[in-house]
Amino acid sequence: MHDRRTQRAAVLRVRGSIATEERDDLAREEPMEIRVAGPNEEEAPLVVTMRTPGHDVELAAGFLFTEGIIDRRRDLLAIEEGAPMPGDRARLPIAGRDANVVRARIAKAIDAERTARSFFATSSCGVCGKASIDQIEVRAGRVTSSLRAGRALITSLPGALRAAQEVFAKTGGLHATGVFDEAGALLIAREDVGRHNAMDKVVGRLFLDDRLPIDRAIIAVSGRLSFELVQKIARAGAPIACAVSAPSSLAIEAADRLGVTLVGFVRGESFNVYTHTDRIDRGQSA
Amino acid sequence: MHDRRTQRAAVLRVRGSIATEERDDLAREEPMEIRVAGPNEEEAPLVVTMRTPGHDVELAAGFLFTEGIIDRRRDLLAIEEGAPMPGDRARLPIAGRDANVVRARIAKAIDAERTARSFFATSSCGVCGKASIDQIEVRAGRVTSSLRAGRALITSLPGALRAAQEVFAKTGGLHATGVFDEAGALLIAREDVGRHNAMDKVVGRLFLDDRLPIDRAIIAVSGRLSFELVQKIARAGAPIACAVSAPSSLAIEAADRLGVTLVGFVRGESFNVYTHTDRIDRGQSA
Repeated sequence: MHDRRTQRAAVLRVRGSIATEERDDLAREEPMEIRVAGPNEEEAPLVVTMRTPGHDVELAAGFLFTEGIIDRRRDLLAIEEGAPMPGDRARLPIAGRDANVVRARIAKAIDAERTARSFFATSSCGVCGKASIDQIEVRAGRVTSSLRAGRALITSLPGALRAAQEVFAKTGGLHATGVFDEAGALLIAREDVGRHNAMDKVVGRLFLDDRLPIDRAIIAVSGRLSFELVQKIARAGAPIACAVSAPSSLAIEAADRLGVTLVGFVRGESFNVYTHTDRIDRGQSA
Repeated sequence: MHDRRTQRAAVLRVRGSIATEERDDLAREEPMEIRVAGPNEEEAPLVVTMRTPGHDVELAAGFLFTEGIIDRRRDLLAIEEGAPMPGDRARLPIAGRDANVVRARIAKAIDAERTARSFFATSSCGVCGKASIDQIEVRAGRVTSSLRAGRALITSLPGALRAAQEVFAKTGGLHATGVFDEAGALLIAREDVGRHNAMDKVVGRLFLDDRLPIDRAIIAVSGRLSFELVQKIARAGAPIACAVSAPSSLAIEAADRLGVTLVGFVRGESFNVYTHTDRIDRGQSA
């Protein structure tokens, strides 16, 4: 079956003194443009992101929500994948391919062209391109949730997320985000070359299904937790965020301020809790 | 000694059934604004990037060069770290801190305000924020170099790079880029929360020292190789790029087109070569 998320490529595989020419599966990375129109507005390009194809509508919806452009499901009137129109700027000069485009019509005025100037996205970070520092923070309310999680639940998450990573299993090259319920069951997982896209795809799916906020859920990511990801997690209303790797200092500040329990270095039976530790059953104290 | 690259934070460390409250070193992540002025131009903000503090001038110089804003050392008339001026937009609303700013004066007209609208940067990707898809590609010439590298040299690079990662050793949370000569000696290494920043810091140092192009050198990165990183590597003129992890499909296309030998999955005695394989001594063929 053709999988849009991967691509075959020739590779010279060197294993000790043996070299063989083979073909290998790679994670695909291609540009996607999000175009938006508010009421009585012309559609205009909002952002280009480098992403792994697939779940493009979820990605666009998640981006519009987590970046604060729309706040409620009903703000999104229509969203669809589409080819570039003649004359669109969304022509991809790379290898002569056309870009993928997702078009959204929203219920509030946006002035996409003006917004695009001061607000941009990326495959791996949400900060990038914001024209000045005062544009970095997204409006995210403080997460309040009585959810508690035990140690066994936390330590089960990386394995459960990895098991859901179909493309990583083939290519070794993708980030993943998963949402788990309080019993540790996986609700949804998405993969992408960009960690922020994986998050936006997950939150976008929940947004499209009008299931936000997810105040009884735990979000797990395959890599590290940045400031931007913590903001997107708070925007989705998730009280606990877990990562296999380290958080940054600013991620911890944001999690503290936004009411998110931030867990890092989840490896084997061990993990670190950086903020709002009361949500984690700490077992016996030393 | 105070290290600007790390920060202490309280952490609840859970190890099996034992939880202890400790303090831990974290990789710092803070915004930095690059401001630029061409001849007879007012200084204007060009970009904000989330980065690990330290080597800020290198980061800014590398960004200006790898993104094609300046082409030669002499295009950079002056560059310095500076505090925000009163009235600057570079005020950081996060935790009440001021942002770091680097100011550059360059020898060519840039119209920073206009450029900023259509061209932005990030801690982890260089695409982000480019206003439309036709702005993604940076002008990078094709790398021509007769450099050859043997298997033992390639497989030595991840360990040598890891050994140079001072901050990673403390925090487990940073990307690294290293430049090695053809004998495998490390020339320069830099770390950052953003993989693109680590690359820009390395290339920026070489640019400031007027040592580009590095056509007898090999660049190694700690993570995966994206399209953007390959473009920056080609811009620096390096003929061989090595990564511990996977490349994306678009990274391979760019490396093929730009004349860069792209090596991935360098682990133990094994690695994969995706493009321009003739630069690698393949040992005996199977």
